[in-house]
Amino acid sequence: MRRTTPFVVALCLSATALLAQDLTEEQDRALTARQAHMGLYGFYLTPLGQMAQDRIPYDADVAAAAANNLAAMAAIDQSAFWVEGTDSSLERSRARAEIWTDPDGYLEVKQGMADATEALALVAGDGLDALKAAFGPVGQSCSACHQPYRAPAN
Amino acid sequence: MRRTTPFVVALCLSATALLAQDLTEEQDRALTARQAHMGLYGFYLTPLGQMAQDRIPYDADVAAAAANNLAAMAAIDQSAFWVEGTDSSLERSRARAEIWTDPDGYLEVKQGMADATEALALVAGDGLDALKAAFGPVGQSCSACHQPYRAPAN
Repeated sequence: MRRTTPFVVALCLSATALLAQDLTEEQDRALTARQAHMGLYGFYLTPLGQMAQDRIPYDADVAAAAANNLAAMAAIDQSAFWVEGTDSSLERSRARAEIWTDPDGYLEVKQGMADATEALALVAGDGLDALKAAFGPVGQSCSACHQPYRAPAN
Repeated sequence: MRRTTPFVVALCLSATALLAQDLTEEQDRALTARQAHMGLYGFYLTPLGQMAQDRIPYDADVAAAAANNLAAMAAIDQSAFWVEGTDSSLERSRARAEIWTDPDGYLEVKQGMADATEALALVAGDGLDALKAAFGPVGQSCSACHQPYRAPAN
């Protein structure tokens, strides 16, 4: 497997360059950055969700760190992510045009996630019951954005 | 080009799966997350560096937002990124073993970046001279971590 890796990596770099061909550098960077940001939401949400659903044991330190990090990421100004011309008409994007045509609505749900994750961060280390109670609104804040602003998977 | 895209995407997903074969899910997720986090550093550093080097015009709002976001990301607890077995012996990783054998040193340079980016965030919107003065220590904080803790590119 090790011997095929350089070839596979080179092929993927070429493919990435090919897929990026239609985009400006600014569009490409914004798309990559927001997908990285969303990926980090997933990274921090995973242990919190697994604890909330009793799939892994509750760990106060892990829960508190993940919730603090999630809240810090959710509080970040994300306006630089939404460069014009990077909506779901592109293969790489699931961002509905409504993000651009309804910016106030988008900002409202974005603030909803910031509020819900901040509330979770305040209690995530205080026991499983507290985590479970505060995790629900975080999950709802995901849906509140994905439903209106994320297109179905290709 | 559009017609080749699904094939290329499928190939890359297979390649990614192949490259991830040797790792546990936890290791794979940690590697992906920390590379996303580093990529976001780059996303926010780029306009700041371009302004500091007079390559793009100074824009107080853009500078302040990028610097605030960079400082928020640098302040994040990154301990979940450094899962054992994800050092530069892997193709996907440039993390030197010293991250694990010298955790205090790593935490010190990590704090150095948090401090330098916080100082930058405090002044990035106050004019180009202020930005330039505060950007230097941020660049130095990158090197202060990369030199001891990042292996050369493969």
